[in-house]
Amino acid sequence: MKILHYASVAPTYVDNDQARGIAARVVIGKDDGASHFCMRMFEIAPGGYSPKHAHAWDHEIFIHSGEGEAYDRGAWHPVYPGTVLFIAPGEEHQIRNTGGGKLVFACLIPSGVPEL
Amino acid sequence: MKILHYASVAPTYVDNDQARGIAARVVIGKDDGASHFCMRMFEIAPGGYSPKHAHAWDHEIFIHSGEGEAYDRGAWHPVYPGTVLFIAPGEEHQIRNTGGGKLVFACLIPSGVPEL
Repeated sequence: MKILHYASVAPTYVDNDQARGIAARVVIGKDDGASHFCMRMFEIAPGGYSPKHAHAWDHEIFIHSGEGEAYDRGAWHPVYPGTVLFIAPGEEHQIRNTGGGKLVFACLIPSGVPEL
Repeated sequence: MKILHYASVAPTYVDNDQARGIAARVVIGKDDGASHFCMRMFEIAPGGYSPKHAHAWDHEIFIHSGEGEAYDRGAWHPVYPGTVLFIAPGEEHQIRNTGGGKLVFACLIPSGVPEL
């Protein structure tokens, strides 16, 4: 069994034209022998956002803390602690922080695609 | 995209000789077209616990709120908000609530095994 606090993993920071204010961590992945799916943790700073994009694999997301919005088919939907999102393959999506603190969520993907 | 708060799903309650005080919900599963893995949410009441057991599939767990302990190879380890657990296939495990409020966590499993 592997037990850790997600924040103990060194983050990868993302700040570019498509995404702002992101700290990303692979917390369970292929290096742990996880052969089916991968857990990543994301922290988005106030005002930050993930890229608006689509890809061939699905996302399963759990919002841990903070306040934000998720983009789906032309509209923004509020997300907050306890919100669950399933993004099917090919669905365009984006998440942005609309609150004053970090927006923190787990985002899981199938094995075999880039972990970050 | 599917967006919901986990608590909007009707829970399945578990209270027997092996497990106490559990409310379990499948929040993303095969009925959503999730073909790789399944997200379940568990709430364990104060004093409650999951069964001590082992099985052929892995778990990826994220602790959302509350305080508890996880059993691994004869010892109990504290878990709290932000703790991540990877339980490999075949590893005996159990989670118990040691706090005064609900212990709430996401537990993900590969597709093809019982969702609850």
